[in-house]
Amino acid sequence: MATLLRGAEVVSALNERIQSEVAALKKRGVVPTLAILRVGEKPDDLAYERGANKRAETVGIAIRQIVLPETVSQEALLTEIAQINADDSIHGCLMLRPLPKHIDGLRAREALLPEKDIDGITQGSLAGVFSGTKRGFPPCTAKACMEILAYYNIDPAGKNAVVIGRSLVIGKPVAMMLLQKNATVTICHTKTKDMPSETKRAEILIVAAGKPGVVGAEYVSPGQTVLDVGINFNEEGKMTGDVDFSAVEPIVGAITPVPGGVGTVTTSVLMAHVVEAARRAIER
Amino acid sequence: MATLLRGAEVVSALNERIQSEVAALKKRGVVPTLAILRVGEKPDDLAYERGANKRAETVGIAIRQIVLPETVSQEALLTEIAQINADDSIHGCLMLRPLPKHIDGLRAREALLPEKDIDGITQGSLAGVFSGTKRGFPPCTAKACMEILAYYNIDPAGKNAVVIGRSLVIGKPVAMMLLQKNATVTICHTKTKDMPSETKRAEILIVAAGKPGVVGAEYVSPGQTVLDVGINFNEEGKMTGDVDFSAVEPIVGAITPVPGGVGTVTTSVLMAHVVEAARRAIER
Repeated sequence: MATLLRGAEVVSALNERIQSEVAALKKRGVVPTLAILRVGEKPDDLAYERGANKRAETVGIAIRQIVLPETVSQEALLTEIAQINADDSIHGCLMLRPLPKHIDGLRAREALLPEKDIDGITQGSLAGVFSGTKRGFPPCTAKACMEILAYYNIDPAGKNAVVIGRSLVIGKPVAMMLLQKNATVTICHTKTKDMPSETKRAEILIVAAGKPGVVGAEYVSPGQTVLDVGINFNEEGKMTGDVDFSAVEPIVGAITPVPGGVGTVTTSVLMAHVVEAARRAIER
Repeated sequence: MATLLRGAEVVSALNERIQSEVAALKKRGVVPTLAILRVGEKPDDLAYERGANKRAETVGIAIRQIVLPETVSQEALLTEIAQINADDSIHGCLMLRPLPKHIDGLRAREALLPEKDIDGITQGSLAGVFSGTKRGFPPCTAKACMEILAYYNIDPAGKNAVVIGRSLVIGKPVAMMLLQKNATVTICHTKTKDMPSETKRAEILIVAAGKPGVVGAEYVSPGQTVLDVGINFNEEGKMTGDVDFSAVEPIVGAITPVPGGVGTVTTSVLMAHVVEAARRAIER
């Protein structure tokens, strides 16, 4: 029986920390404020937004809702982002994506100041996570993995960490963050010849393959910590991870469930980033 | 007997390619031009500069020499960099470092446009190499490793590549470039528990440990390709690599000598970057 690494426990610890930091900032006259920039009325965006609003309320972070019509011009969107950049009372900005097809998404992302990029979408944030400097913020899911390890006292130092996936949203940044914490890091992907022989050597295995159930019993070994970043939905609409949980759980030492694992922590990480952005703004 | 991966052969192939690209650019009225920005008269800088001048002459790249006194102010240096940025006839800038201690080196580096950063020192270049986009340029030594592999037809795709070292100048960028070429990449460093068991699994081993002779016979296995990035000098002033060449060479399949290996290729990579910068400038 593996230890279940439950996101909910990490979230309550994180929220507590955020709340006390928010209180300290409010004493100094600063209300940490998150702008949520939405274009159009996509159901996915609205659902994500509701989640963020709720979490922000829990921890005492103020939300500035900015909604632009689906038909907004590139110009008007960039003007809005420039205003967010210039507004000192906004500490972080979450730009809901994908943006409509007529918008140049890269230009829109790059228009945001890395200092307010609490979702890790700008080149400045990516350079920060690559170089290990505190410019911008890492993508929230990558940071959520690190928060889970920290909460459960799993120190990556000197350990073999294997990451499946090399996206800019999770694989590469989590690899850099594990490296920063002194793990020996291997990055695997679809072109890896013999995946099981790589993943079996891991002491920490981060699975961000983007395919349901690809990591089965033959991929794992006893004592491993497995973090499943996958979010997939099967035919019955049930959420599943990238790991075949029922096959893997009896073998490994610790594992995140899906749902209830990494994904649960992401929104709290976003809030932690807003607080950090507010603190950095004071210190600048 | 391992195949010797000689830098000189890579350099002549690279120079030939650069020369033909320079000729094509000149036909379009563009003379690829490299600004070399030097502060003071340090012997190391002067030596590097002489090498760059010579290589530039060989391939037909123009050099703009900019020399500032050792006592130059931060302001004056930034002004000079701004002028280089604004000057369309300059395509790349090599800023010799380290800068004098009274200068904020990070600010000076960041002042340079990534588009002209042919030495891979800006955050923009780092973000480019991390995200696999063509913004800025990777550090020349990391690119030199990739050029050696390409010249000797060693395709990283599907291979296990192990990198010793995690610096921003070589370890991390070469890891990202190997990943981009579909290798399965492991990054080792001083905190790695069992280095030989990692390195022995490598099909391509990049050694950038920064310590002479750390990679001995027990680190390698038959058939491997070993690239030695180390540049050290022993008591007699003889240049040595990070690999114990006499112990390793009889075992592995292919290896770069030191001197005459990776280091030799770096200056030609710098020139290739100037040409690439000039071409990108036309296409913008």
